[in-house]
Amino acid sequence: MDTSPEWIAVDWTPVRRRAWAMRGDTVLDTVTQVGPVEAARPAEALLGLISVFLSDAPVDVMTCGTLGPVGASVPCEPLSDGAWSVDIGDVRVWLRGVSGLRQKQPVDMMQGDETRVAGFLALNTDWDGVICLPGEHSRWIHVSAGEIVSFQTFMTGVVAATLLDRAVPDARAARVDGVTFSEAVGDAIAKPERVMARVHSIHAEAVLDGLQPEIARARLLGGLIGSELAAARPFWLGQQLAVVGEGELAQLYVDALGAQGAPAALADEPRVTRAGLATAWRTLAAAP
Amino acid sequence: MDTSPEWIAVDWTPVRRRAWAMRGDTVLDTVTQVGPVEAARPAEALLGLISVFLSDAPVDVMTCGTLGPVGASVPCEPLSDGAWSVDIGDVRVWLRGVSGLRQKQPVDMMQGDETRVAGFLALNTDWDGVICLPGEHSRWIHVSAGEIVSFQTFMTGVVAATLLDRAVPDARAARVDGVTFSEAVGDAIAKPERVMARVHSIHAEAVLDGLQPEIARARLLGGLIGSELAAARPFWLGQQLAVVGEGELAQLYVDALGAQGAPAALADEPRVTRAGLATAWRTLAAAP
Repeated sequence: MDTSPEWIAVDWTPVRRRAWAMRGDTVLDTVTQVGPVEAARPAEALLGLISVFLSDAPVDVMTCGTLGPVGASVPCEPLSDGAWSVDIGDVRVWLRGVSGLRQKQPVDMMQGDETRVAGFLALNTDWDGVICLPGEHSRWIHVSAGEIVSFQTFMTGVVAATLLDRAVPDARAARVDGVTFSEAVGDAIAKPERVMARVHSIHAEAVLDGLQPEIARARLLGGLIGSELAAARPFWLGQQLAVVGEGELAQLYVDALGAQGAPAALADEPRVTRAGLATAWRTLAAAP
Repeated sequence: MDTSPEWIAVDWTPVRRRAWAMRGDTVLDTVTQVGPVEAARPAEALLGLISVFLSDAPVDVMTCGTLGPVGASVPCEPLSDGAWSVDIGDVRVWLRGVSGLRQKQPVDMMQGDETRVAGFLALNTDWDGVICLPGEHSRWIHVSAGEIVSFQTFMTGVVAATLLDRAVPDARAARVDGVTFSEAVGDAIAKPERVMARVHSIHAEAVLDGLQPEIARARLLGGLIGSELAAARPFWLGQQLAVVGEGELAQLYVDALGAQGAPAALADEPRVTRAGLATAWRTLAAAP
């Protein structure tokens, strides 16, 4: 059996880079790098990431994320900007990538999630609604008739990591108490302006009263996700919803939405990302 | 002239430690350490901080901050808990400190600001109102008839530093455009739930449209401080106000409050801190 990849899928962000060795839609192998990019030049870092997949034969590489430029403005199709390509000085690698998208008002941008929308639509033909993509940056994307209509990005994950670290470091790895989380989400949606005031109270209860880590983490994450839901209400109210993510964070968003009477389908993010890159590879890599 | 200190004033936090060599209320010398505590034991770190002030003669050291315990619950006088003392194994140093205060509902705590309230009241006899202390943690303290009635702590400074770092790193050291700042404060007070949504928009404008650093920083800080003002409204509305702080951040709080029709007097934080420690030294160090 030939185990060499037909093509390589890459999702590239400043904090995590993943590559999949692919044959059609089948994953042959996976590599992940977490943390800042260490190589001086992006091309060098990319070759380092995918080196275990390379043989003497040339291979297509299709990327999404922050390696490439930001292109078209919404409303537009997720892959409407075509693929960029660049010679990275290695004859084995034909590097192409999906351009990011921008929004004019309110100004916003995405680099990678346009590919996940393409993947979600490839897996769910003719789907209309709102896709929520939780993470360090969480993003709400309104999709209609195959186009991205509008979107909004929140830095909830960045703020949550900092506040867990500074307010309740012992709770960073605690499980989340479900009942407390739902209550905190509800409180935050009702009074979003009070969320930041509550964080130091959680810290003080942890120090003075021995607040349990699973309660502390549930209150902090529930407050921040609830605050995001309050601001993102126009996106999720009365819409068909999908959360594209994985692990605990994605489930927390599904739970938070469900508790507001807004049921969301959960789609596995790595599968959706690969489906988007496969769509890009098939439709864009054939272009000149 | 004898230049050896009569006593040493110390303000101790995990991120900054300051010591003043004092003769009565006069400052003879100052040292500051910024960053995490490096010594393994607090006593060792304290001796390191004040070592330049020490001679063979014994000296009183009066501290506030996170070296000591959290004591009494408000409402109470700022120094009502007496002074703790500890033998740090150096015959030259008689170490005492002001205990922090706690609040039962909503649970909160302070370690250091109780001393600043005592200092402010020593400099402003019979003052009633609300004292705002901006910083990494900002705190609003309601003072009446010489007692701390209630308080609330916000982690605005911590969140601002992280978001500047992640969203607009080029703007970290920019000056703040005043008009933009006031507008951002007003927007945030009107719609506090939208502040977190706006942060990524600032990032996108910086990347895509070359948003000027002084505009980016003004919008980010205005949004976060305005959001804090929205939550702290019961503290500042219709109250006599003082901001105890220094530098740009204190002036931004004064400006933000002023733009809401709530004029605040600005008091120099190091002077207020030393006045509080001097009061503690005179009233508490004499106790057994």
